[in-house]
Amino acid sequence: MTFGAQRRRLSGVVAIPVTPFDADGGVDARTYGLLVERLVDGGIEAITPNGNTGEFYALDERETRLCLDTTVKVVAGRASVVAGVGHDVASATRAARHARDAGADMIMIHQPVHPYVSDAGWVEYHRAIADAVPELGVVLYVRNAAITGAQLATLGEAAPNVIGVKYAVPDPVRFASVARDAGFTRFTWIAGLAELSAPGYFAVGATGFTSGLVNVDPATSSEMFRALANGDYPAAMAVWQQLRPFEEMRAAHGNANNVSVVKEALAQLGLCRPDVRPPSRALADEERSRVGELLSAWGLAG
Amino acid sequence: MTFGAQRRRLSGVVAIPVTPFDADGGVDARTYGLLVERLVDGGIEAITPNGNTGEFYALDERETRLCLDTTVKVVAGRASVVAGVGHDVASATRAARHARDAGADMIMIHQPVHPYVSDAGWVEYHRAIADAVPELGVVLYVRNAAITGAQLATLGEAAPNVIGVKYAVPDPVRFASVARDAGFTRFTWIAGLAELSAPGYFAVGATGFTSGLVNVDPATSSEMFRALANGDYPAAMAVWQQLRPFEEMRAAHGNANNVSVVKEALAQLGLCRPDVRPPSRALADEERSRVGELLSAWGLAG
Repeated sequence: MTFGAQRRRLSGVVAIPVTPFDADGGVDARTYGLLVERLVDGGIEAITPNGNTGEFYALDERETRLCLDTTVKVVAGRASVVAGVGHDVASATRAARHARDAGADMIMIHQPVHPYVSDAGWVEYHRAIADAVPELGVVLYVRNAAITGAQLATLGEAAPNVIGVKYAVPDPVRFASVARDAGFTRFTWIAGLAELSAPGYFAVGATGFTSGLVNVDPATSSEMFRALANGDYPAAMAVWQQLRPFEEMRAAHGNANNVSVVKEALAQLGLCRPDVRPPSRALADEERSRVGELLSAWGLAG
Repeated sequence: MTFGAQRRRLSGVVAIPVTPFDADGGVDARTYGLLVERLVDGGIEAITPNGNTGEFYALDERETRLCLDTTVKVVAGRASVVAGVGHDVASATRAARHARDAGADMIMIHQPVHPYVSDAGWVEYHRAIADAVPELGVVLYVRNAAITGAQLATLGEAAPNVIGVKYAVPDPVRFASVARDAGFTRFTWIAGLAELSAPGYFAVGATGFTSGLVNVDPATSSEMFRALANGDYPAAMAVWQQLRPFEEMRAAHGNANNVSVVKEALAQLGLCRPDVRPPSRALADEERSRVGELLSAWGLAG
């Protein structure tokens, strides 16, 4: 698949699947596959195993490989697989090569977790990983407001396969500025803070958005995307209004229950267990009831 | 070694060694050993391989094991080895057990990098790792101002081997409050932001501090500790004044060159190569000259 075709796939709903666990706490690959199948059936064309909604930082290397392998196998070419990779350069490079060999189209490089990030070192970190898989498209995950358009431009020149930026700083003005400084047409711009932020980011140049909510209801995420792609902001905001309480529940308390709320909803729909790994935790009874109410109001209750 | 004896070791200069690299970019274990030997010769009694100054997040699992093994072997019982462990629970637990089997006394659990941290999940994350090595003392690394004394108290009840807290939020009032809420005598309190913050933290209850600068000059860090342990704040502040420009250079630009400055100083002293891994980078020529000036002013130039 050409980089151009990949960029078209990123201009859409980029789904981040949850990672379901079995009764013993291990990754439940069979259920993982069924959830991915449900996304593809729902028309989703870009799927990112090992993203934050997939509890990337709670998985070890063997488990992230299992999630990637399962995704590629189930998707079977019907959507692009954008493999989340991260940690130190050597580990990220191993994961990127594994993703390529397994049949993924792209990788998404998680923001470096290293506490001491220099401007030039940031570029070098991403370039080193991108260079290891020149045949794959690369999406950057930017969560740090200090990263400049100039750094992105430098990286874009050094690494032709860096094709997309998932921007997750909660500031559309900063996003708009960084995107222009980086070279607006050089990259595909993906709103990285999901449905509630998507309208504000599409208004200034995003052409895709990432989603965790899509696990629960692919149709509604797709509906918002179609509205935004058509420039129909009132229609997008009607969907926004519907999703708002669910997404606010995920965002509360510094995102403490970001994934827990999604998994609880999936559990109530009979699709997977609600378990998450520490430092997250499953919802309390009161919170679970609230998720049930939201699903009912949404017309999704089982 | 009893937990009591370990707590006395944590009431001192807790050194975080750098991880030197060889010309091919790999971990240089021989030089690593010589740098650790220099710390022990300088009277340091607690050494934390695989801390942030050791570029933990730029090392893979094989490399962190090499650093740990090298430290234990060189130290040979003359100081406590506090092994830095982190990432997902399974990886951290493997590293903790490896540290125990290799002969470390304690582990330090890095702050979880997972973006979705709940109060109860934070406790569960640390408890799960501490429980895997009940015979080792455990030090927590707290960099998140949202963590409460109540969470620490709950963890302290659940995991008797959690004996120390390295507190690295830049707010001594918050530190003092959290320490009292957690149970002041239940834990040993370590100022986690090194020499410049140490006096303000000792004033409210810290009895040890962590240091990266100690790699360059163990005598000066020890001098500051003795002054603080004796309650001689004017003497501590005289050392503070001497170290200030070096530590400020490390802290500039959001800590971009935190480790690079230390390694450059060590390189100018002929002790290791200046190389760091991305997302950090080695210093520019002008910055290197500045390090040389600081070493000269300090009476350390080679």
